[in-house]
Amino acid sequence: MTERIGVSVNFSTQPLVDSLIRDAALLRLGVKRLDNGVTVVDAGIDTIGGLEAGRRIAEICMGGMGTVTLAHSALTPAWPLRVHVHASDPVLSCLGSQYAGWSLSHGKGKEAFYALGSGPARSLSLKEPLFKELAYQDKADATVIVMEVDRFPPLALLDEIAADCGVETEKLTVIVTPTSSLAGGLQVVARVLEVAMHKAHELGFPLDNIIDGSGSAPVPPPAPDFITAMGRTNDAILFAGQVHLFVRGSAEAAEKLAHDLPSSTSRDYGKPFAQVFKEYEYDFFKVDPMLFSPASVMVTAVESGRTFRAGKLDAELLARSFGG
Amino acid sequence: MTERIGVSVNFSTQPLVDSLIRDAALLRLGVKRLDNGVTVVDAGIDTIGGLEAGRRIAEICMGGMGTVTLAHSALTPAWPLRVHVHASDPVLSCLGSQYAGWSLSHGKGKEAFYALGSGPARSLSLKEPLFKELAYQDKADATVIVMEVDRFPPLALLDEIAADCGVETEKLTVIVTPTSSLAGGLQVVARVLEVAMHKAHELGFPLDNIIDGSGSAPVPPPAPDFITAMGRTNDAILFAGQVHLFVRGSAEAAEKLAHDLPSSTSRDYGKPFAQVFKEYEYDFFKVDPMLFSPASVMVTAVESGRTFRAGKLDAELLARSFGG
Amino acid sequence: MTERIGVSVNFSTQPLVDSLIRDAALLRLGVKRLDNGVTVVDAGIDTIGGLEAGRRIAEICMGGMGTVTLAHSALTPAWPLRVHVHASDPVLSCLGSQYAGWSLSHGKGKEAFYALGSGPARSLSLKEPLFKELAYQDKADATVIVMEVDRFPPLALLDEIAADCGVETEKLTVIVTPTSSLAGGLQVVARVLEVAMHKAHELGFPLDNIIDGSGSAPVPPPAPDFITAMGRTNDAILFAGQVHLFVRGSAEAAEKLAHDLPSSTSRDYGKPFAQVFKEYEYDFFKVDPMLFSPASVMVTAVESGRTFRAGKLDAELLARSFGG
Repeated sequence: MTERIGVSVNFSTQPLVDSLIRDAALLRLGVKRLDNGVTVVDAGIDTIGGLEAGRRIAEICMGGMGTVTLAHSALTPAWPLRVHVHASDPVLSCLGSQYAGWSLSHGKGKEAFYALGSGPARSLSLKEPLFKELAYQDKADATVIVMEVDRFPPLALLDEIAADCGVETEKLTVIVTPTSSLAGGLQVVARVLEVAMHKAHELGFPLDNIIDGSGSAPVPPPAPDFITAMGRTNDAILFAGQVHLFVRGSAEAAEKLAHDLPSSTSRDYGKPFAQVFKEYEYDFFKVDPMLFSPASVMVTAVESGRTFRAGKLDAELLARSFGG
Repeated sequence: MTERIGVSVNFSTQPLVDSLIRDAALLRLGVKRLDNGVTVVDAGIDTIGGLEAGRRIAEICMGGMGTVTLAHSALTPAWPLRVHVHASDPVLSCLGSQYAGWSLSHGKGKEAFYALGSGPARSLSLKEPLFKELAYQDKADATVIVMEVDRFPPLALLDEIAADCGVETEKLTVIVTPTSSLAGGLQVVARVLEVAMHKAHELGFPLDNIIDGSGSAPVPPPAPDFITAMGRTNDAILFAGQVHLFVRGSAEAAEKLAHDLPSSTSRDYGKPFAQVFKEYEYDFFKVDPMLFSPASVMVTAVESGRTFRAGKLDAELLARSFGG
Repeated sequence: MTERIGVSVNFSTQPLVDSLIRDAALLRLGVKRLDNGVTVVDAGIDTIGGLEAGRRIAEICMGGMGTVTLAHSALTPAWPLRVHVHASDPVLSCLGSQYAGWSLSHGKGKEAFYALGSGPARSLSLKEPLFKELAYQDKADATVIVMEVDRFPPLALLDEIAADCGVETEKLTVIVTPTSSLAGGLQVVARVLEVAMHKAHELGFPLDNIIDGSGSAPVPPPAPDFITAMGRTNDAILFAGQVHLFVRGSAEAAEKLAHDLPSSTSRDYGKPFAQVFKEYEYDFFKVDPMLFSPASVMVTAVESGRTFRAGKLDAELLARSFGG
């Protein structure tokens, strides 16, 4: 198991949170201090936010260890604006921080609030079994959590989060990014490498054997309704995301990983995600979890020097999802 | 109208100016303090300057709110080196700072000096009606102005600029970038997003409805004579510039904007700019102002989720302009 | 001769070395202080290191004056992950710092240690005639040297290096990057611009006439054995590296430079480097030195405004080298 002594995703991220808050006006973000002391950064509910805000939030999600850049590319000519991602320690950055794995809920019925928490706070609360496998837990007196939601979380939930993380409420920052906002869409597609790591994990590939990687995906056009917007952020990865992983272990294991990893291996591949979701009557649990992965995958087995490929960027399906 | 309380393009830019001056030797720039106290940065008159100097000056033009990067791309295969641009608040960054809209002149006849001022100083002097529409004015005690010129501006003009900006001459920095220099060419093509915003404004599209955008354009080969060099910096955008705007408002308005925005809509499109200019006997006022815009345009209407396209990158015209 | 008064590649690089050491755990690097006081950074011998570590080390090699970024590109579709390079003063950055020109050796027989030193330390020790041509020598009390080796250098050699550089051993940092590591491979292909500069110099083109440039090359898949790994790092540049140089002087000289520069001009071009090396019985001195250059070259003569091209990216040869 890879040891990560002296690595604190919270410590690494705090300067990025400080500068996000300092530059809030420039980034068209709202910042408020709630009654319980928690700082909330609004990246698209009552504010405009934008691509650069989303880019910075994506680097916060990655625990201050990831690099997210925007550049035009000819990879998907109809959608040139593309996010490019890599990290200094991709498994820790993507799965130990960026993965939206902390299930948060509060209240019932119409008042119910539900969100998946992403970011460094997860490595303090350790609510997910994944952290045992990562053999990672952080210690910090300040933390940040990112939620892809379109309304503000209830105070009582934020109190709980702070308590679960072992930090004072004054030391908790919550960043909210609606799916239909530019910042929200960008921080989702910046997960292109993370979804590959996560599916590799689901496929039983040893995380310790994933030593590096990079990914890219087009920035999706936002959409006003949640289902379409969410569908497009997924489809940016499923139809036009690309990753290159570098792994240890046998060439056979790498070949199998490459073969099994692309979205096209899923029974649900072949139509826009919004349509898949609708056909399952909006029940996430019915969607094949193996769908969530990049379109095009390369896996290099560093111990044999061999590279395996599967899947491809699908401009036609992307057009169907992103519309005209 | 979007409010921009607490946003100072001058404050945001000052650290970039400080580091440009600190790194002047590395960047092959000249820095001198004039008799009246003004600091002049020479990015290509008596110095070499270069691409990186131009990249940094472009970010200064953008009011410290823009990101300008250089990367090779397959978008125009014959001219792979491309500038990629986005900003945290594109309308303010591009029109409130980067746009070369401050008409500066001094002296008469052979001694006459004429320049268009770009950068944060414009939002202090407020000489342009555009600032009323932007509803933006800055306050700062230090400022910077960028001029695309091949000789140094007269002291008396710099005194006037400082006075117009309400800053001490000791607190004014002037950056000069000749059109035929590498830094000059780069900082011009980094205006690819700005020219799209400016033409959108000329077309009557409400600036408040432009919420985000990104652009890219190839770095043009410099040319020794001013007309050819200037022509190429324009053609980099007119024949090979690409933007993606994100706008509010109706899908119809977005569609019309996309349709009207590309350079190819202009009656003057179809030959290198130097030739157009020559045919108009070097009279800028005869050139169709609608010519100045990117070759390829995408506009996403975020409230309907629809994306509209018009124009295209034109490798053949680019070859005619950039030569061999 | 270009003067470089006030430019210290060592001073410019030291902050990057400090942050590399500070972030060592994040970057999966090992750092140890040896008995003689020298700091050794292990980027792949007993550690994982990675792409981001390699990217940062490449910027250290470039004397703190280079920008090295990672982004996916369609230039070589089968190998999308590409390194993009430019510098504020490319000749000084690439030849005065990045070039692995300091021949280091210690001991004899099986104990012998041999390495080529790269980085700012070279401009202190001035062991190479190249520095006379660059008319550059640095003064600094702290320095860094990068070695592409797979074992740690002997203490006595490090004592000698410190003495040659005129710094205390406590002020010398040595970064070791094995060829077969991810960091090692990345920092080699980030030399795409440097190899072009170096071959231009070998061809007798005046270095003072090279005023700017940029380059890109794909990240090679590591390989377990040294010969294959080394071959791939070379082939990334020889078969898929691309540079654009901006030069002074006549159009004829620029045309000749473009014509002579690509790897394909070499008698040894046409098969993977590992095979070339094997056929020469692993004797580097038998390999045509003119082989070491980018696949595709553009040279713009800024004084005439003309651009010349030669060579091309060769996907088929790249596939033969990088394997499957």
